[in-house]
Amino acid sequence: MSDDAINLSQKLSTFTERWSPKIVSQFNDCDVMVVKAEGEFNWHRHEDTDDFFLVLRGTLRIELRDRDVILQPGELFVVPRGVEHRPVAEQEVHLLLIEPKGVSNTGNAATAAKKVSI
Amino acid sequence: MSDDAINLSQKLSTFTERWSPKIVSQFNDCDVMVVKAEGEFNWHRHEDTDDFFLVLRGTLRIELRDRDVILQPGELFVVPRGVEHRPVAEQEVHLLLIEPKGVSNTGNAATAAKKVSI
Repeated sequence: MSDDAINLSQKLSTFTERWSPKIVSQFNDCDVMVVKAEGEFNWHRHEDTDDFFLVLRGTLRIELRDRDVILQPGELFVVPRGVEHRPVAEQEVHLLLIEPKGVSNTGNAATAAKKVSI
Repeated sequence: MSDDAINLSQKLSTFTERWSPKIVSQFNDCDVMVVKAEGEFNWHRHEDTDDFFLVLRGTLRIELRDRDVILQPGELFVVPRGVEHRPVAEQEVHLLLIEPKGVSNTGNAATAAKKVSI
């Protein structure tokens, strides 16, 4: 690991909160984030952006209205814009997320977690 | 793994070519790709986009003009737009790449690998 490398496990070791995305890098107009999650998130949609999930540890179920998508470590799924979804983790899961800057994780600014850089 | 999950190791097992990115998903205006690399790529820059690298297997050295960035599995680096860089892998490395659609991997359409979906 060199000084510039962003080590995702190391970043994840610096916090314990769930459902609180932490910005680790930026790519064009997007935030690259890690998050720890456990339990059920709310049903939501993003009207203006796709939603990128890559599982780093644990199992994530992304519930869609017509089916579930089950992701294990090393698996990704992109929820298309406008599609309602609910992330659920029976046990703690670690994720890499990519979203345009300023997008709220709930699809609603009033209920969104504040994203901070780490 | 559910039908919708994109398993990166499985995708990587379907080809052997090096330096030939394969599109596995799309995120907004970007291609999400996996690639196998070994040896030295060419020095290049992308004037209009950052360049996202996440190492899945092996070790990648991203040479910049003023320093090297060494990436191990689970580490990422985003080369800022306009910054000259040369990816080098002493042994085979497997990467997740994200680039806007239509961007050439060499920064030059004439020498770029053709990206195909798998």
